[in-house]
Amino acid sequence: MKPAIDFYFDFSSPYSYIASEWVEAVAARHGRAVQWHAILLGATFQAAELKSPVSHPIKREYSIRDFGRSARFAGLPYLLPAKFPIATQNAARVFWWLNDSASPEQATAWAHAGLRAYFTRGVDLSDAAALRALLAASGIDAAGAEAAWTDPLWKDRLKRENDAAIAAGVFGAPFFVVDGEPFWGNDRRPQIEQWLSGQADFSHTVM
Amino acid sequence: MKPAIDFYFDFSSPYSYIASEWVEAVAARHGRAVQWHAILLGATFQAAELKSPVSHPIKREYSIRDFGRSARFAGLPYLLPAKFPIATQNAARVFWWLNDSASPEQATAWAHAGLRAYFTRGVDLSDAAALRALLAASGIDAAGAEAAWTDPLWKDRLKRENDAAIAAGVFGAPFFVVDGEPFWGNDRRPQIEQWLSGQADFSHTVM
Repeated sequence: MKPAIDFYFDFSSPYSYIASEWVEAVAARHGRAVQWHAILLGATFQAAELKSPVSHPIKREYSIRDFGRSARFAGLPYLLPAKFPIATQNAARVFWWLNDSASPEQATAWAHAGLRAYFTRGVDLSDAAALRALLAASGIDAAGAEAAWTDPLWKDRLKRENDAAIAAGVFGAPFFVVDGEPFWGNDRRPQIEQWLSGQADFSHTVM
Repeated sequence: MKPAIDFYFDFSSPYSYIASEWVEAVAARHGRAVQWHAILLGATFQAAELKSPVSHPIKREYSIRDFGRSARFAGLPYLLPAKFPIATQNAARVFWWLNDSASPEQATAWAHAGLRAYFTRGVDLSDAAALRALLAASGIDAAGAEAAWTDPLWKDRLKRENDAAIAAGVFGAPFFVVDGEPFWGNDRRPQIEQWLSGQADFSHTVM
């Protein structure tokens, strides 16, 4: 088995939602697994001295337009949530709690459930009641999840994941690392596919 | 004839160089002309409160790697110039002088010559002597060009182009406007091609 693809995402990132819908299929076609990493974009933005694209004049309007256009280009349903962006630390802590206490597959299923709920139905993952309801509807122990997202243990688990991501060069989302090669953005899909096909001869940067 | 594609570029933008090598062919396949616009990224960055990707920690290293990788993905020669980024107002003023005084075709030829010289041979377009030599080698009246780039008339022409670009929503480069639809980045090529093919049903942003 070739090394897994590291896939970093934030529950409040539209381009992460789009990429989350193709990363497994692309990886599987090339005999790869995917290691999902829920992170907080706020932490990576701070490390790289960046802000959200919607925090910049002019770029804000373009980005909101491009989120929906890029989702339609990928053939996906999409709705800009009424509240955007949102704080996603609770959703991310639940991801790591499931990953470590249940299984990576259950964590991935939660990632899909959370991203789809937020970006197609506007479910506010930053609201505790909405999050509990979504967890229950997704077949997850909502009381256990809430205990986890308020527990210093899982707070620390997420913090360490953010730190590790930054140390790995992650400054935005979605972010992919394939065989040590970093790819930023949903729009790097063609380069990732070429890399995975083994036909890429673009690994060694000429400077 | 359908409306021309507006193509905004900066002589110091690697992704503009890559896009400059495909925009004419893609446009021609769909019966479109291209209206080239030399602009200064510094002006659009200021308006959108942005900085160059290489001014950000962590993102800097990724970007330098991605410039060369993306060029190779597009099948283009590329070399990160020893001096990068550079001030490009003189090269841009020459572009507008040629566009208005000679022809848009000669301005486009200069755009190609300047971008290729900088990104494949590291010719420093911010250096007056290097710029004069490149102009002469490109069959352009170097003395006339230098007179233009120091002339308030052409300084003002470029300033008005920057202002017009910002008013049109441009905040980075390359930037394309097709039938009023804005596309930012070399990596929006697949969406642009789909738009031009008339098969795109992603024009109306659902929010």
